[in-house]
Order: sequence, then structure tokens, then C-alpha cells
Amino acid sequence: MFNKILIANRGEIAIRVIRACKELGIKTVAVHSDVDSESLHVKLADESICIGPAPSTKSYLNIKAIISAAEVTDASAIHPGYGFLSENAEFAEICAQCGLTFIGPSPESMRLMGDKISARQTVTKAGVPILPGTTEGVMNAEEAKKIAAQIGYPVIIKATAGGGGRGMKVVHSPASLPNAFATARAEAQSGFGNPEVYIEKYCERPRHVEIQIMADKHGNVIHLGERDCSIQRRHQKLIEEAPCPVLSEDLRQRMGKCAVDAAKAVDYSSVGTVEFLLDQDKSFYFMEMNTRVQVEHPVTEMVTGIDIIKEQIRIAAGHPLRFRQEDIQIRGHAIECRINAEDPEKFTPFPGKIVGYHPPGGLGVRVDSGVYDQYKVLPHYDSMIAKLIVHAETREEAIKKMSTALDEYIIEGIKTTISFHQKVMRSKEFIEGDVDTGFLERVIL
Amino acid sequence: MFNKILIANRGEIAIRVIRACKELGIKTVAVHSDVDSESLHVKLADESICIGPAPSTKSYLNIKAIISAAEVTDASAIHPGYGFLSENAEFAEICAQCGLTFIGPSPESMRLMGDKISARQTVTKAGVPILPGTTEGVMNAEEAKKIAAQIGYPVIIKATAGGGGRGMKVVHSPASLPNAFATARAEAQSGFGNPEVYIEKYCERPRHVEIQIMADKHGNVIHLGERDCSIQRRHQKLIEEAPCPVLSEDLRQRMGKCAVDAAKAVDYSSVGTVEFLLDQDKSFYFMEMNTRVQVEHPVTEMVTGIDIIKEQIRIAAGHPLRFRQEDIQIRGHAIECRINAEDPEKFTPFPGKIVGYHPPGGLGVRVDSGVYDQYKVLPHYDSMIAKLIVHAETREEAIKKMSTALDEYIIEGIKTTISFHQKVMRSKEFIEGDVDTGFLERVIL
Repeated sequence: MFNKILIANRGEIAIRVIRACKELGIKTVAVHSDVDSESLHVKLADESICIGPAPSTKSYLNIKAIISAAEVTDASAIHPGYGFLSENAEFAEICAQCGLTFIGPSPESMRLMGDKISARQTVTKAGVPILPGTTEGVMNAEEAKKIAAQIGYPVIIKATAGGGGRGMKVVHSPASLPNAFATARAEAQSGFGNPEVYIEKYCERPRHVEIQIMADKHGNVIHLGERDCSIQRRHQKLIEEAPCPVLSEDLRQRMGKCAVDAAKAVDYSSVGTVEFLLDQDKSFYFMEMNTRVQVEHPVTEMVTGIDIIKEQIRIAAGHPLRFRQEDIQIRGHAIECRINAEDPEKFTPFPGKIVGYHPPGGLGVRVDSGVYDQYKVLPHYDSMIAKLIVHAETREEAIKKMSTALDEYIIEGIKTTISFHQKVMRSKEFIEGDVDTGFLERVIL
Repeated sequence: MFNKILIANRGEIAIRVIRACKELGIKTVAVHSDVDSESLHVKLADESICIGPAPSTKSYLNIKAIISAAEVTDASAIHPGYGFLSENAEFAEICAQCGLTFIGPSPESMRLMGDKISARQTVTKAGVPILPGTTEGVMNAEEAKKIAAQIGYPVIIKATAGGGGRGMKVVHSPASLPNAFATARAEAQSGFGNPEVYIEKYCERPRHVEIQIMADKHGNVIHLGERDCSIQRRHQKLIEEAPCPVLSEDLRQRMGKCAVDAAKAVDYSSVGTVEFLLDQDKSFYFMEMNTRVQVEHPVTEMVTGIDIIKEQIRIAAGHPLRFRQEDIQIRGHAIECRINAEDPEKFTPFPGKIVGYHPPGGLGVRVDSGVYDQYKVLPHYDSMIAKLIVHAETREEAIKKMSTALDEYIIEGIKTTISFHQKVMRSKEFIEGDVDTGFLERVIL
């Protein structure tokens, strides 16, 4: 097992990793930008080191500074968390060159899944269903029109190098295609430095259902069931739950098998997530694979009883999986609400000083937070300041527990999305499980 | 199901019940003494009512005021929590007379188990092993000497009406018996208003192992496994865990069966706990039954996944048990530390204002607390201000998780027992599971 791990991240995920390391008896090194010296992850790690100024490119994305920090502190492995360098294959390669274990998959797996077109090609070969569409970049609007006619409208144009909603355009008719195509390419260029886009069939009112997988370095791959992440605003997840309220056991096993096959197709090791669209008719289509731990991994931990981060570290250290597929049991229901420092009406960032903080507690209530009373939420980083996760016997009880916990959660001095989540927990449609990725815009906002 | 429940208690257990009620869709009424108006249970309940001045006899033990509060607020049931009126059969009777459901067993069950001698007689008839000793009160020192000679020294003298260590005397030789006998009677008189005592064989280095039971009003009784509560100071539990590290599955089932038989012997309904001494040779002996929910019930909730308070409320409403014995599975390991507002060296109360509060969080960390930042811990009541509970896959990981969580727990302005718990979590003997009820005095203090 590793002696010391450097965590190349900040906020709640850095704390999540620090806690896992402490339980495994591994020493931890926090890195931080100059404005982050009072952050909780710095206080909780065994040691900490400043890696540069506030802009992420100069600190949390500064590969040279991070590698130096690992060398100076004698860390033997680096955990990238999510975001920042977590899906950067080059960073994983540099770690390896410097004798540091990158806690994640191989650079090759990351590259194959990071490029959306090669990912679609690879999983198709493995028998995983994808939405009808191109498996190569589309070069011009004329070609795009031809393809859209073949697939049938509506279609969606997506950035090859993209993710998170940027560079995506839904097109309902040939007339609006040229304009949408140009915009998508421009957004792809400015967002990801690569203008290439591809075209897919656009699903109406789909659910976002993803499968957590876990693969060791010895060829064993299992899945831990699904998460339903349909509550999104502009392709940003806000609420996640497990299990998905409309999945039958048969469908879970079929989607699980596809996720495992997708992982095997790229020789994947580490934890990861295969994201699917689930259509109204229960057809499912591969969207992409996230080759890192996700924000919403806790809901899976709550229903399976498995500590995903500890397993990820064990896998990176070369340990074989400690679970077989038949050991995985889904127990009860879990929901996660992402608490953002945002205006809950406009979803615009609301950084500032917290002057009054009291998290909820009790049975089945979990708080993964990066903040504390008198802490200044910084404008430089993602606005998520805490994740509130609940676990109960049934979905109905989990919703009530979340509602109670949200009522108890006190964060003063800044605006947060707590009141938004309360609105969702009390909406008839959400309570009935009648949601899709358009739910928020249609029902709540 | 009840429409509204009054909680005749304060602090973390009142909050525990309020949370359960909210999840069951039941309205809640908090009662409080005049000094308790800023307490958290008052803030979290749907309504609250002052029932008298600070001394418990005038408020939390004031039956008339509590019944009036229930009538005024139109509550249909009363949850007594633990302590205060929770084991007062007369109170349960008065509730029934006033048309209020007492959330607990019948007054008859409470009386049979409340009197230690009748309890011993009753369970003996049901085939439950008890320590060799008297099943009737011992009237004078001469008789006591005769009995001690038959049983064999060491023996322990205990108050018939007692509990919690008061009125207990261990006697190692005939010479010291008369004095101990007189002291025990005097303590029993002053502590419980009844001088009667009885004599039992004294076990050397026993464990305190108790079985959680659950019984409905339809004759169904099951057990939820055991808790090891051997970490005690002067018979006051400080740390509890589940499962007990030295119990085999066979022994668990035998002790479980005895606990179920003891409950059946008094026609028990509601949740309750049967306490046993577990000898070094793995013999076990009935000590007493607590006819209420216990402080340490969360460790059982963590390993079984069952919400004991919700089940208790359902049972009181006449619902049949929703679990059969074979449904109960023990998963992982849970530990609870009682965080007291006390000097951690002397264990003397340390009330005062909290000026800085941040509870730990993350996977498998549960905080059941009655306090918040700027809250004034009152000198009038029990010094326990929070329970920190952790759940992990193994005992070793649970200990590390507890240690990490204790490190993270910030309570400033008053002294607490957090540092004491840290000492225990780091002690070799505790880590090895080598504990008994004398552990603290022998190893830590």
C-alpha cells in the first residue's frame, strides 16, 4: 500500500480522499493555491504545500508544480479527484515517468474514452448500443444535413472533445441546421480548443442513467448498479439518486453488462462511470465514459455499502477487487443534493463569507462539505460547497429525509441552492419519480 | 398512524424522535423547561410548549404538565425518549387513561422488568440464565453472609429498584460484607426511595453485552443482534459497538433467543434491550431489561439498516413487525462515542457556552447532537451533548474512522470528552478488542 498520497484537488473531494487515506493508514499531502490556504482540505491533510496563484492554470492545473510538490513531500501516488487534471492523459503519463502512481486508469484508456468519437467506435465494437449518429467528425453543414436526414430529426450536434453541455446544439429541422452547426463548432473551439463536432439522434425526454464500474489491474471488472442523474440544469447535474426509480432488475443487469463490456473494451482499471441515455421506451444508449471518480459517487456508496475511494486506492496499489459481481447488493435508496453557493433563482455564483453554519445530522444523513463557519467561499472555483446525501429504506422515505435535512441545514452570509432543492423534494412529479433531463426547465424553473 | 406526537424529553433524543416523525409525516410537539427555550429540539419541532422551571421534577418529570401539553396541542401519542419518565409505569398508565398512546411497552411489562427481583424471577422461569444469587430481597447482613457463602465470593450487592451503578457494592470476603450491605441499603434508599437489595455472584472481567429486541402488539418478537457496551466508567457507558468482537454467530443466536424469551415472558411490545454479562468463558447471564429505547441504539441501526425509532412508533400505532428474524442481517461494524460536556480527566460536568462548533462528516459518519455554535450547555441536565457514530466494513476500519472523525470534531468554549475517546481509540487493548467492564479504570484512567 502507498505510504503517502498527494491530492491534486481542493474542496470536498480533496477532503473525501484525505478521509479515505486516514482510514487506510496512508499519509496525505494537500496542495493549494495562494488564496486557498484557509480551506478545509489544507487543515485536514497531514501536510500541505502551496502550488501557485489563484487561477487554476497556475496552480491546480499546473502539472509541473504538482509533480514538484509530490517529489518534495516524498509522496508515492497522486489522487486527481474530479475536474482539474483528473481526465488529463498527459498528466497521468508524466506521473508514471516520475515514478508516481496516478490513481486512475491508464493514459491509453483515458485517451480512448476522452475522445467522444473513438469512444463511440470502441464501445460499438464491444456490442454496446449507441444513439444513431456519426462515429466520425462532421466537417461541414452540407454533410451534417445529409446525415441528419438519414438519422431523422431531431438531432443533436456535440463537440468531439466536449462534455458538460458546452458545444451541444439540438436541431429540430433542416432550416436551423447550418446556424446550429456553426455555433456548435465555435463553442467547441473556444471551450475545448478543437472545433470538431459529431451528430447524434436526439432523444426526447430521456433519463440520464449511469453505471458505476470498478476494475482492477488483473482483468476483473464489476458494476455497482446505476445512478439516475436526470435532474440537470443546462447539462449540469444537481440531484442524483440510486437506484433509478424506473429500472427493472433485468434492465439493471443489461445496462451493467454493457458498462462492464465498455470498460473491458479499453482495458480499463480503476473506478469509472459509463453514462447512458435511457429513452422513454427503456432503450438505452451509451453517451460517454467518465474515467475518474464522479461528484455523485456517494449515492452508490450508500446503497452498496462500498467505499469507492478506498477501493480506487487499493486498485491503484495493484490489489485485486475484493468483491465479485454477485456480492454487490443494492440496499435502500439514496439521494444527493449538490449545495452550491449560488443564487437559487438565477444559478449565478454567490461567493462570500459564511457567517453561521450548521449541517444536519442523524441516521442516514451524510454531509461531504468543504466549508465551515467564517470560511470565505472563493469566486475563483466551482460554486459547489457541499453535498448532502441521505439514505433510507425506500425512495419515499429518502425524499422526506432529504427534505428534513435541507430544512435543518443552516448556511448564512451567502446564498445557496438549498431552497431550490426543497422545491424539487416537494414537487409532485419528483416524488412520483416522473423525471427526465428536461424536468427542471419544464417543472421547477 | 398518529397525527401528532409530543416528545417528553430534550436534547439529542428529542431531536432523534422529531426526525423520525418528520419522515413518517407525523407532526411534532416539543416540551421544554424555561431554561431550555433556545435548545435545538425546540427549534426543530413543529410546535413547542413550556412545561415548567429548570429542575426536572418541575418540568421533564412533571406528569401533569406534560399531559396538559399533549391535550392543549392535540397530540395523540407521547414519546418518552430515555431517562426522565421513560420507565415510569404510572406515567404510561396516566397516558392511557387520558386517551394518549404511550410509545413504549405496557405498564405491566415495565413493572415486571423494572423491579430487578421480579425480573430475575420471571426470566428464570422462561429459561434465561441469571447469575447465581437471590431472587428475593435480602433483609439483613446475617442472611446476606449465609447467601454469599453459598454462592461463593466475590459477590455483588445491588439495589432492587436500582440501575446505573448506584447502590452497588462488590464484596470479596465475609469480613467486609456487613459494612457493604449497610452502605448499599443506604444508597438504595437515598437513590431510589427503596432500601431493598439483593445479592449476586460477581463476575471477574465480564463484558457488558446487550441484545436489542423489537416486539409488536401481535405477539411477534425478534432481536437485532447485540451491542458491546463494556467501555464504562462507574457503570456509565461511554463507548458502545456492534457487533461484539468476541461473539460467535452461535452465541449471538443463543443470546438473541434468550432476549426474545425474556421479552415474551412479560408480554413485551415496543423496542427494548436485554442486558447480559458475558463471562470470560463465554457464559452469559441476564442482568436487566431496559424497557425503552437506549442511548446506544444507533450502533444497531448502522449495522442492521433498521430505523429503530420509526419501528417503535409503528409498533405503538399497532402495526405488525415488518421484519422476520431471518431478514435481520448484520453488515459491517459500528462504534458510538458519547461526547459529554465534561472535563476529560475528571469526568466532572463542564457546562458553558459553545463558541465554535464543527461536526465531522463523510461516509459512515453520523452525528446525533443537541447543540450548535453559541449554544449554552446547561448545568441542569445530563452532560451528554452529542453522540458520534461511525460505520465501516470492519472493526479496524471503524476505529480508524472514529479516530479521524474525533480529530475533525471541533467544539470550543467548553471541555468535552473528545480527547478521552481519542485515547481509547488509540489504545492497543481496545484495538485488539480486549476489553471488559473494568477496562477504563485498568488501562486508560
